[in-house]
Amino acid sequence: MSKNRLEAFSDGVLAIIITIMVLELHPPEEGILSAFVPLLPKFFGYLLSFVFIGIYWNNHHHLLQACKSVNGAVLWANMHLLFWLSLIPFTTSWVGEHFESIPVAFYGIVLWLSGFAYYILVRALIAHHGQDSVLANAIGKDKKGFRSLYIYTAAVIVSFFSPAIAVGLYVVVAIMWLIPDRRIEDKIKQLK
Amino acid sequence: MSKNRLEAFSDGVLAIIITIMVLELHPPEEGILSAFVPLLPKFFGYLLSFVFIGIYWNNHHHLLQACKSVNGAVLWANMHLLFWLSLIPFTTSWVGEHFESIPVAFYGIVLWLSGFAYYILVRALIAHHGQDSVLANAIGKDKKGFRSLYIYTAAVIVSFFSPAIAVGLYVVVAIMWLIPDRRIEDKIKQLK
Amino acid sequence: MSKNRLEAFSDGVLAIIITIMVLELHPPEEGILSAFVPLLPKFFGYLLSFVFIGIYWNNHHHLLQACKSVNGAVLWANMHLLFWLSLIPFTTSWVGEHFESIPVAFYGIVLWLSGFAYYILVRALIAHHGQDSVLANAIGKDKKGFRSLYIYTAAVIVSFFSPAIAVGLYVVVAIMWLIPDRRIEDKIKQLK
Amino acid sequence: MSKNRLEAFSDGVLAIIITIMVLELHPPEEGILSAFVPLLPKFFGYLLSFVFIGIYWNNHHHLLQACKSVNGAVLWANMHLLFWLSLIPFTTSWVGEHFESIPVAFYGIVLWLSGFAYYILVRALIAHHGQDSVLANAIGKDKKGFRSLYIYTAAVIVSFFSPAIAVGLYVVVAIMWLIPDRRIEDKIKQLK
Repeated sequence: MSKNRLEAFSDGVLAIIITIMVLELHPPEEGILSAFVPLLPKFFGYLLSFVFIGIYWNNHHHLLQACKSVNGAVLWANMHLLFWLSLIPFTTSWVGEHFESIPVAFYGIVLWLSGFAYYILVRALIAHHGQDSVLANAIGKDKKGFRSLYIYTAAVIVSFFSPAIAVGLYVVVAIMWLIPDRRIEDKIKQLK
Repeated sequence: MSKNRLEAFSDGVLAIIITIMVLELHPPEEGILSAFVPLLPKFFGYLLSFVFIGIYWNNHHHLLQACKSVNGAVLWANMHLLFWLSLIPFTTSWVGEHFESIPVAFYGIVLWLSGFAYYILVRALIAHHGQDSVLANAIGKDKKGFRSLYIYTAAVIVSFFSPAIAVGLYVVVAIMWLIPDRRIEDKIKQLK
Repeated sequence: MSKNRLEAFSDGVLAIIITIMVLELHPPEEGILSAFVPLLPKFFGYLLSFVFIGIYWNNHHHLLQACKSVNGAVLWANMHLLFWLSLIPFTTSWVGEHFESIPVAFYGIVLWLSGFAYYILVRALIAHHGQDSVLANAIGKDKKGFRSLYIYTAAVIVSFFSPAIAVGLYVVVAIMWLIPDRRIEDKIKQLK
Repeated sequence: MSKNRLEAFSDGVLAIIITIMVLELHPPEEGILSAFVPLLPKFFGYLLSFVFIGIYWNNHHHLLQACKSVNGAVLWANMHLLFWLSLIPFTTSWVGEHFESIPVAFYGIVLWLSGFAYYILVRALIAHHGQDSVLANAIGKDKKGFRSLYIYTAAVIVSFFSPAIAVGLYVVVAIMWLIPDRRIEDKIKQLK
């Protein structure tokens, strides 16, 4: 099965997720600077979530570049990933309005589940392409993916003591991933 | 007429339908766990509708893979399908707020009409490709499609006695379809 | 300049326009049938606008099929068309809430401007492809396009006396166009 | 890395940004003409922002046409551009409701940052393609881009004295860009 429509559909869903979050940024009630200040946490939340969706799009892009085709299992693994990512606008909005333990923990749980869904997608693609494929070689042990899951787990626990530190941990993961996944890119170049 | 833009437009509409439903999940008024609990039925409704749209996208993908081109009748049959699917966010939202007979029956009616519109699309594609085409062979008698329509009909009737059982029947159909439509995939491989 | 991205961007915008209108269909306050009845005019308005956007997408699809490339003027003519079409959710929503002369006339004015923008797009494409091109031949005198503009003009005037008859005239135009534009399709086949 | 998905994702995000702004145009409370008049500033704001997004799409289209491939830095430079553009619906909405110094200045700051992000994207693409590439030649010194940034800077300052003149300056930039970027188009033709 060709991968084109999977890419197109994922691009569409990710484009919508990344953009509708801005609908939650309601303009201030007044046209003065002090009316904008209370919006800053929401604004920062939007930025963080934008970066996370951006990271997923980037990695998804790199991942699919190394694939030749997809199968039914991959379609559903991808849909599963999109489901968790689609909850990010909801959790972003909750954290933006209530910077408290439960919403911040919830944000981390959704990130954890998204990360895990990405891991399943990678496994489904490797199962389809074979353990000796370029893809399998390029991914290797996926240390970065596992490290992210560990940090999310820590952040969820920490959020019950200090929501601010938990958010700090999410920022750490974001920065860790902002450097695009050179593994696949390099390996493909190498093997071509 | 080439099928590319039909696929692209359908991908766009389905991506939006599947994503805007999340806009109905308004974050709780408070940052505590008990504030999230009343959202659970809405959340489950979102999940179910996400799965249904996912199923349609998957089957649409498989279906169009077996097609070589489209014509005017196919364009409108596809638009007709998208119309009914576009009502799913509306019905999901109604059921999520009022878990009662009428909304649950309405949800089933929209699913029934979507299923029937899909059937019309399949017929339009077969009419265009010919009764001896790979597509016609691959689809065969489409038992699964008819079975879904029967179950929806039953669920709509049942919803007047027990909305919960009706929703259970919708879940049964969803599970029935979660296994991707191997018929077309297999037949194409076979015939190639 | 290749036409692919023009098609992709237009598909995206049209997919969003056709889908966000459903966000205006707020679920009834109660879970009973009588609560759904007052929604019927809004529902009908959604259907009519869905059909109009569907017609534009279909004709846009047919039109671009006959084109080989685009230029800067075409890009802006297309953007101009999308602008007027993007106002359809707004006018649909206004008519749905106030079935009165001004909103119904406004709906017709937006349809008129969309129709005229489509005409400009066709002219820009013919200017780019040449008066002897397949496209120019296929379009011919575009009687259907002009007829639509006449009917819209009449409907806008009529709306001040009877909004219902004006809407009836919009329905007439929709039905007139539901039959896809065979002119281009046939001519292309002929000339190939 | 192929540029196709970058184009598709950008098309999706820009299509959504340009369209969701219309959701802020809430239909008037009444069905009379005088109820529409107070909407006119919002309507004009929508038009201006539509034109700005349209300009970015057009220039993005021209820019990517001259590119052969992309790399990780380009992906993030593009994401950065989309982030600032995604704030345009927010600023448009704020200006539409409060035609005052701060919102109008804010609008200009977002335009300035978008313009600067576009400049970074161009640099990332030139760095990837080489200083002797068609692209680098076509862009040249990018006077128009710098001139826009100067005018935005002036407009932000002016907005504290007269919001109306500041908006006038934004309109000047829009008109300046409405003529599509022939530089790249011409150079490509020349060099082919």
